[in-house]
Amino acid sequence: MSSSGLSFEVLHTDGAARRGRLMTAHGEVATPAFMAVGTAATVKGLTTPQIVATGTQIILGNTYHLMLRPGAERIARLGGLHKFMSWPGPILTDSGGYQVMSLASLRTLDESGVTFTSHLDGARHDLSPERAVEIQDLLDANITMVLDECTPYPASEDEAAESMRRSMRWAERCRTAFRARPGYGLFGIVQGGVYSALRQESAVALAAVGFDGYAIGGLAVGEGQEVMFAVLDETVPSLPADRPRYLMGVGKPADLLGAVQRGVDMFDCVLPTRSGRTGQAFTRRGTVNMRNARHQEDTRPIDPDCACTTCAAHSRAYVHHLFRAEEMLGPILLTAHNLYYYQELIAGLRVAIAAGSLADFAATFAATQTQGDLPLPDSGA
Amino acid sequence: MSSSGLSFEVLHTDGAARRGRLMTAHGEVATPAFMAVGTAATVKGLTTPQIVATGTQIILGNTYHLMLRPGAERIARLGGLHKFMSWPGPILTDSGGYQVMSLASLRTLDESGVTFTSHLDGARHDLSPERAVEIQDLLDANITMVLDECTPYPASEDEAAESMRRSMRWAERCRTAFRARPGYGLFGIVQGGVYSALRQESAVALAAVGFDGYAIGGLAVGEGQEVMFAVLDETVPSLPADRPRYLMGVGKPADLLGAVQRGVDMFDCVLPTRSGRTGQAFTRRGTVNMRNARHQEDTRPIDPDCACTTCAAHSRAYVHHLFRAEEMLGPILLTAHNLYYYQELIAGLRVAIAAGSLADFAATFAATQTQGDLPLPDSGA
Repeated sequence: MSSSGLSFEVLHTDGAARRGRLMTAHGEVATPAFMAVGTAATVKGLTTPQIVATGTQIILGNTYHLMLRPGAERIARLGGLHKFMSWPGPILTDSGGYQVMSLASLRTLDESGVTFTSHLDGARHDLSPERAVEIQDLLDANITMVLDECTPYPASEDEAAESMRRSMRWAERCRTAFRARPGYGLFGIVQGGVYSALRQESAVALAAVGFDGYAIGGLAVGEGQEVMFAVLDETVPSLPADRPRYLMGVGKPADLLGAVQRGVDMFDCVLPTRSGRTGQAFTRRGTVNMRNARHQEDTRPIDPDCACTTCAAHSRAYVHHLFRAEEMLGPILLTAHNLYYYQELIAGLRVAIAAGSLADFAATFAATQTQGDLPLPDSGA
Repeated sequence: MSSSGLSFEVLHTDGAARRGRLMTAHGEVATPAFMAVGTAATVKGLTTPQIVATGTQIILGNTYHLMLRPGAERIARLGGLHKFMSWPGPILTDSGGYQVMSLASLRTLDESGVTFTSHLDGARHDLSPERAVEIQDLLDANITMVLDECTPYPASEDEAAESMRRSMRWAERCRTAFRARPGYGLFGIVQGGVYSALRQESAVALAAVGFDGYAIGGLAVGEGQEVMFAVLDETVPSLPADRPRYLMGVGKPADLLGAVQRGVDMFDCVLPTRSGRTGQAFTRRGTVNMRNARHQEDTRPIDPDCACTTCAAHSRAYVHHLFRAEEMLGPILLTAHNLYYYQELIAGLRVAIAAGSLADFAATFAATQTQGDLPLPDSGA
């Protein structure tokens, strides 16, 4: 893999966990890394300086949304996604396959690829492995994901095998279609459902083709944390050790911790941003619903141990008021807080791995996350 | 007026226009000043640093909204509106009367005050002159507005006279109820519809009571700019010269300019913020609808002559995309731009008054505002 467009270095290990560094044409990503989801060329509600203030280093864009609106060719004419959305750092784009299956209608999938109608205007679109790579090239994604089929859960072993093997053939076509450039790379995606033999077959097949990084797809689709961790235990050792590993669409804070302990380097998830828009706060004592009336006269920040811009300036009472009044600033402040929480968690994991203290970190995390919310402000009076 | 809680100094004049300085317990306001509207304890979509970056020095809060949710007593318990919304600068609150009439239902108005049911939950509320002052004191407003009736337009001279005279009696009750403190003040409000004699009677009556500032109410309700300017021509000379003058709810950029030329010192209006949420941009060449397809590949900023954070970082194409995709960031970026435009306009007026060049400023403004939008980007190719 020395010829990869993406340089990746493992700096420290602690058990299976890795502290690393990924270099892209748009800068460095410290791993383990959490990617903020910027679906339609925006991390919903946040400006670029606000995203930077959360500690976010890399953003994920969604090929499905962007190919439909404003269109990949248009973004290319406008100078690429970094310039279009004013995000100077690294960008990873998904292949569009997952969202075609969850959002588009009238889908037909065969060996050539997938055809679907847009959920926006009903227009017909084709997405082949080659076109998925072309779109991501037009977007100027630093990390391009191969087109795959996210195997539904539950699926029988035969169904999972058929789906995975087609994804492997598509992955090879993506590798052929991908235009190699310094600072840019292509990631393969391991599929195979919950079947250990299929996951290992998939990992070996991808490694034989050779990618700049390896994603584990088709998880966090309802199988539960225990099954997910079991799949990681069986899959990660089959992935090349010198390349980054990315667990797609995961997850809750405890999922991130457990996956890092199993050797995963990269994550993306809508949870901090989507929860931020609906009033759920992540804190060092667990999640808190800011719409709850218990907060209405609480002058403390969302999380007294948080150093984010929201907690530095605003009370629970105010954030509660904003959600009750359906004011935009509520989702904005809580999205910033939640992303900061995720980035601080992942930064804490990086520090712990480097210090060889990941087990201590995990024990402290487990103990504090089960404390429940702060006592009511007047309970100690 | 030397005993006023609000020190006000006229530093320069240019014709009837004044460049001044208003001191409050929460800092200084350079006048002429434009107040950003922060209805429910938030300038919709903007964080405090973003508001500051627009050049905004003073914010307006709405008594009607805040008394209903989260409640004036609650805000007082939480330390007042400045602390509640994390706005360290000066705050003016309206009296609630205008919004009772436009938003509440089952309103009854008599000499004692107004009774209404909340548009939120149907609960009954009373708002007397004394209660309006008490609420604003609980909110910790630096500038409290007297309760008045915003005379409907059109109204007969008899109707306007009856309404105005009741407002004058209410103003006197507000003055009696107001708790004087250094850095805090109470403004009277001139009413009288479009009737010159009534406006002058109102101005003289308020001046006889003595207020820390004088507002002109009941304009920008459909009478048109010409009538509004005529009312200002007839009213402003009757107001004490040593106190700030505030034209409520006004207005378009040209309205601000004309009112400043007639001796007005303070303004508030939802136009820059509300327009920002619907896609209308204010520019140095006039207003532009960012939803229009002409912007979809335009890499120029909303206004090439604007130094705001939005224009520094983002293209018209991107802002257009955000509005088409109904992304929150569109309203956020455009609200910040529009407020910056208003604040730069009013700052330009301050500089022009100090330099004695307001007539030149007005001529340049009139010439550029009629240019229409930028030529299409490819028209010169």
